[in-house]
Amino acid sequence: MSILRRMFEAAVEAARPSVCLPPALPAPPPGRTLVIGAGKAAAAMARAVEDHWSGPLSGLVVTRYGHTVPTRRIEVVEAAHPVPDAAGENAAGRMIELLAGLGADDLVLCLISGGGSALLARPAPGITLAEKQALTGALLRSGAAIGEINCVRKHLSAVKGGRLAALAAPARLVTLAISDVPGDDPSVIASGPTVADPTTLAEARAVLAKYGIEPGPAIAARLNDPAAETPKLLPHGDYHLIATPQRSLEAAALVAARAGYMPLLLGDALEGEAREMAKVMAGIVRSIRAHQQPVPAPAVILSGGEATVTIKGQGKGGPNAEFALALALALKDCGGVEAIACDTDGIDGSEDNAGAIIAPDTLERARLLGLHPESYLSDNDSYGLFNALGDLVKSGPTLTNVNDFRAILVR
Amino acid sequence: MSILRRMFEAAVEAARPSVCLPPALPAPPPGRTLVIGAGKAAAAMARAVEDHWSGPLSGLVVTRYGHTVPTRRIEVVEAAHPVPDAAGENAAGRMIELLAGLGADDLVLCLISGGGSALLARPAPGITLAEKQALTGALLRSGAAIGEINCVRKHLSAVKGGRLAALAAPARLVTLAISDVPGDDPSVIASGPTVADPTTLAEARAVLAKYGIEPGPAIAARLNDPAAETPKLLPHGDYHLIATPQRSLEAAALVAARAGYMPLLLGDALEGEAREMAKVMAGIVRSIRAHQQPVPAPAVILSGGEATVTIKGQGKGGPNAEFALALALALKDCGGVEAIACDTDGIDGSEDNAGAIIAPDTLERARLLGLHPESYLSDNDSYGLFNALGDLVKSGPTLTNVNDFRAILVR
Repeated sequence: MSILRRMFEAAVEAARPSVCLPPALPAPPPGRTLVIGAGKAAAAMARAVEDHWSGPLSGLVVTRYGHTVPTRRIEVVEAAHPVPDAAGENAAGRMIELLAGLGADDLVLCLISGGGSALLARPAPGITLAEKQALTGALLRSGAAIGEINCVRKHLSAVKGGRLAALAAPARLVTLAISDVPGDDPSVIASGPTVADPTTLAEARAVLAKYGIEPGPAIAARLNDPAAETPKLLPHGDYHLIATPQRSLEAAALVAARAGYMPLLLGDALEGEAREMAKVMAGIVRSIRAHQQPVPAPAVILSGGEATVTIKGQGKGGPNAEFALALALALKDCGGVEAIACDTDGIDGSEDNAGAIIAPDTLERARLLGLHPESYLSDNDSYGLFNALGDLVKSGPTLTNVNDFRAILVR
Repeated sequence: MSILRRMFEAAVEAARPSVCLPPALPAPPPGRTLVIGAGKAAAAMARAVEDHWSGPLSGLVVTRYGHTVPTRRIEVVEAAHPVPDAAGENAAGRMIELLAGLGADDLVLCLISGGGSALLARPAPGITLAEKQALTGALLRSGAAIGEINCVRKHLSAVKGGRLAALAAPARLVTLAISDVPGDDPSVIASGPTVADPTTLAEARAVLAKYGIEPGPAIAARLNDPAAETPKLLPHGDYHLIATPQRSLEAAALVAARAGYMPLLLGDALEGEAREMAKVMAGIVRSIRAHQQPVPAPAVILSGGEATVTIKGQGKGGPNAEFALALALALKDCGGVEAIACDTDGIDGSEDNAGAIIAPDTLERARLLGLHPESYLSDNDSYGLFNALGDLVKSGPTLTNVNDFRAILVR
């Protein structure tokens, strides 16, 4: 396997529940152990708990359609992502019921991963899922920041913003989380169902006022009811980040370092338009080649985070393949560079590939096939180009997610 | 003066002809010394030669309107940039005349800096400036790459692509150059009037064919005349890069290091849309803060090159101020960061400022003034916002140019 593929595998492996979860498991409690959780990795996490737990165990987790794995003692429910559906809402309702009646000798293991917010969408009593979704849509169209939107949503939810933790008391609560968000903030990962919420009801009302959004009567009533305030102080619980984008980058850096490449860890939460990010990275490559700065060659530039694509064309391809294509073009007169860009969840956007690989001869091979790489980029058709070249990376769903992974090898 | 300003001053100072030129001057020749040259720094470079030259000296340089400084022995002509005019064309003609009749005992000092290509625009005999400009316009509109455009232009020029060097023979030729181009390639800086041209007539014809451009009869005849081939082999001449973007970044790094900041030299030739580059840089800042990678805080992220702005709004401001504004917005929840972004020539785009400064309270101060930073960015009005805040950097023309300068301090 090429070193590019080995780095990507190492990044995914570091975030695989079967690898990263068992060391974080607490000791079994005197009483019952209930497993709950939500996210794209929830089923794989539940399975990892089962495989390493001694003692009685039961529970329910919700994951995305197609992301299940066989379990024996913990029930797995599939639901919709990114737009919630009734399956997720019902699963959240059942989780609330399971939490009722636990005692101080019992343990709740909460398994959280990216996507958990949509999969565990249950509005507070009196509000329908449709009402909440309509408001979310209005907020998205208004240009509100994601933090503002989540502040409002947490105050309309039966489970988010720490409510699940409040329901677990007096049982001991241990959260095991896989982070896919910049900063790895527990109150942000899956909207923090088990951690105190730093945002307030007043802030939620202010967001709606700021963007001139008039909620319906049920939501307006909720946002003016002091009882709707999210928990600010929760009973002590443990929260373990068992996988993060940074740790996956570090795992890949180790693979590169062992092969003689100096790792440059640029950041685990880079954002920006994929093709522009590629231009900046190409500039760093040139600096390594020309000036041995910021690190000497041979080097590998590693980064995570989430590139975006503003779609203007008719083609196919996610942000990782588009980044790879734009990088090949930006590097065109700069030989000896190869790179990989993949989503660690195994799905780049909505296609069947995790991402793509480029080599020094990528553009030349495309032209020998009569293809025009610039046109593929203009058409947002990075998938089409890399498919023709045989340079798509197809891993299938990895059942974990620590966001994008990019590695650029500079010899 | 703040450390941000001191870093910018150090970057400019390292590229100031009075500082960087004298150490590169050769010994006077037995015969005459003729100074020629073109670029935004040409007058300041001529002045630096005069101030440090022992022996007879004469010559002619061409600089941009408003970029002159008083000289005693070398004539300075002002001409138009970036669109050439007759003043530059005539100056180039006079330079060709001055070069005629030099002997092997004579020395030609050629002073080259950014902008020299437009300032020294003289078409080959039989072609008018208007014809050449029309063709350049057609190439620009066709989407041709800058390298392709320059290949065509060099083959239509009386001075570019090494022709000036050919005319200087048998005199000894020493070129002193200030680089404002990625890679510091002498054949690219001011279109390489004194270095052998790696591109060919056949390539120039192929560029026009590729983009379906039909040149007029004079240009068509020229491009099919073997005598129009640019020099591929020139008599030995010395070429000294007396200032480069990288050396200016290193000078700023030294200022930062002495103040206790770990410098991260990301690259001297970064490209990309200013606001997207800012998002990537914000991600690197977050990594320094959260993970002490790629360097531990306190650190300074230094970079050069040329950011671009795709104008969609009605406001004012160049790429540096727009980068600064976008960076402030991308860093909004990330305290303790300040930054400067300035064009080292002292003019950011077409305004009267070199760039702008941001501080941790930039957004808050804007809002206290009732200003909405996001709207200023949408309107491409970074100048308007920083003007209101009093955070424009105004240095006036620096009479040198090593491209953009960006420094981000992370405490």
